[in-house]
Amino acid sequence: MVMNSARPRTVAVATPGGRYDILIGSGLLQDASSWADLPASSQAVIVSNATVDALYGDDLAASLASRHRQVSRVLLPEGEAHKTWDSLNRIFDHLLAHACDRKTVLYALGGGVIGDMTGFAAATYMRGVPFVQVPTTLLAQVDSSVGGKTAINHPLGKNMIGAFYQPARVVCDLGTLASLPARELSAGLAEVIKYGPIFDMAFLDWIEDHMVALRAGDAEALAHAVQRSCEIKAEVVGQDERESGLRAILNFGHTFGHAIEAGQGYGAWLHGEAVGCGMVLAAALSAELGLVPGAFVERLTRLVQAAGLPTQAPAMPDERWLELMRVDKKAEAGAIRFVLIDPPGRASLRSAPDDQVLRVIRRHSVPVASAA
Amino acid sequence: MVMNSARPRTVAVATPGGRYDILIGSGLLQDASSWADLPASSQAVIVSNATVDALYGDDLAASLASRHRQVSRVLLPEGEAHKTWDSLNRIFDHLLAHACDRKTVLYALGGGVIGDMTGFAAATYMRGVPFVQVPTTLLAQVDSSVGGKTAINHPLGKNMIGAFYQPARVVCDLGTLASLPARELSAGLAEVIKYGPIFDMAFLDWIEDHMVALRAGDAEALAHAVQRSCEIKAEVVGQDERESGLRAILNFGHTFGHAIEAGQGYGAWLHGEAVGCGMVLAAALSAELGLVPGAFVERLTRLVQAAGLPTQAPAMPDERWLELMRVDKKAEAGAIRFVLIDPPGRASLRSAPDDQVLRVIRRHSVPVASAA
Repeated sequence: MVMNSARPRTVAVATPGGRYDILIGSGLLQDASSWADLPASSQAVIVSNATVDALYGDDLAASLASRHRQVSRVLLPEGEAHKTWDSLNRIFDHLLAHACDRKTVLYALGGGVIGDMTGFAAATYMRGVPFVQVPTTLLAQVDSSVGGKTAINHPLGKNMIGAFYQPARVVCDLGTLASLPARELSAGLAEVIKYGPIFDMAFLDWIEDHMVALRAGDAEALAHAVQRSCEIKAEVVGQDERESGLRAILNFGHTFGHAIEAGQGYGAWLHGEAVGCGMVLAAALSAELGLVPGAFVERLTRLVQAAGLPTQAPAMPDERWLELMRVDKKAEAGAIRFVLIDPPGRASLRSAPDDQVLRVIRRHSVPVASAA
Repeated sequence: MVMNSARPRTVAVATPGGRYDILIGSGLLQDASSWADLPASSQAVIVSNATVDALYGDDLAASLASRHRQVSRVLLPEGEAHKTWDSLNRIFDHLLAHACDRKTVLYALGGGVIGDMTGFAAATYMRGVPFVQVPTTLLAQVDSSVGGKTAINHPLGKNMIGAFYQPARVVCDLGTLASLPARELSAGLAEVIKYGPIFDMAFLDWIEDHMVALRAGDAEALAHAVQRSCEIKAEVVGQDERESGLRAILNFGHTFGHAIEAGQGYGAWLHGEAVGCGMVLAAALSAELGLVPGAFVERLTRLVQAAGLPTQAPAMPDERWLELMRVDKKAEAGAIRFVLIDPPGRASLRSAPDDQVLRVIRRHSVPVASAA
């Protein structure tokens, strides 16, 4: 993948829980000035996995050497299936074995799984230490590193155990996207696309116009996609840190998506793939309820396809779908709630009759008969 | 233990993280009005252990029946040794198995271990649900249920994993203290005594005058002890929720105390027993450094003894003491820090030379030669 260089930019995020900057640019990870004005501490711990550490661990450690007397690293097993207490406990074991005090700064170097677990470890180690997000996937840069949601999975549900905890800074180095497999870049584009239907249809136009450049790894196009996605997310989160209302719209596609992920076993589908497909289902449910025209569903389906993402859900029995969606955190008193589009560019949280939900699922999934 | 009845009283607590009331009185647990104006939810979950549940579980469930459609219970294994991830996970398993949503209210019915774990579960289940403290030990009523500290232990350190999370209310029913073993009542008195040296010498006078009544279970004396302790703690916590400065004084006796608890294995000494003994050591260290007169150490030692608490630390090698105290959360960059008295009625966080610390420990502990 050819990567040119993008001009640096900053998105400021203000929430009741704290304010911080998102830095977006090329080569930020190697640049010591990316860490200027962060909390001082003698110890720093980089949390990563073996793949990402091999690519960027040394660069980050070198770049942090002038700020912290001791920089150590802890590597976690890779993938959503390992977003568990056991992995989290590896961080705690490391911190305690190194006698890390409550000023120690944690650096999350990796994708959403690393970010979520490092953030939750930072939120709970000695009841809270500072942490910095250094997201190395497009998905993490546009979504999971913004908004202060941290969590681990429980066998009965994704992200069920966690905390709202804001990073001290987010450093999005576009250079790290050059090493990203095409499948993961596509998965990240799902969360970029998401911001169109729920908030900004002009951004959806821009994404359609730049999909080829984005998939080719054009740095300037990626920089704009990351910036605009972070701006929208920051605006939404700034109004509603604790997800009492507006923030829930960021979960467009996620009720169906989480059911796909959990139903297939974490890791079988990438989160972004499940969300891409989930957005098609959520748009189709919006159309089923008469909230958007069918043409909108077709347009979104084409764009999800153009991003290299699946638009057809896997085969699962009706009861399994309903059971998996009922444990979603947005559910209330057992009623499944969906983020629906009404009209394009605006979204809200609603319930829908089971029979209409199942009809939409059937129309957009692999027939049960052909399931493996 | 004979218990008369005490007039009800309320202590209001305001912190940046939220405001809530502490209700103190006799028979509050059976009184539905104790729960008035709490967050509404269809589901409530009582977290307790088998001993406490057998005594008060039915009363609490009955008293909550008018507020919540479904009241279920989850029982955890008893004791500090079980303040672990495994116990915490029992709560999560229960919540998910019962499809509890993010409005579910958790009620912590028990002592500090139940309160700490229920609070941490509430802080992290779906990133935060409301919870109510119903402390049934004196220690929990005067200390652990106030201030929003929640945590579990890690094999390498006590309360290392946790969160600051405020309850929606604290209901201190003095009637529950009637069933408390004398040893646990004494342990609770350690934390009552604590508030004297660090904040209010007039309260220390009062405790000396009422020690017999307190140990005899006099409800009016206990009510005053709980009220004044909560008032002092609320004042301190209100000024410093996150323990950046003033709040640390509440840990008077805890640096030594935690080392005793961890060194002897959690559960061998009750927390209050370790704190009682730890206060004697911390006062002696204050005297060793010339901050208080020797007579103050003798006075505190007599009061700790009168409360039925140990004043002599267990035998441990010097290196073990230092190692255990270095993992204390107050330590910074490897330097152990103690809450020292200077003068009586005021406290601050300081370091001390290892040789003076060890001299004080030797003077106030069982000789190593006679260790089992």
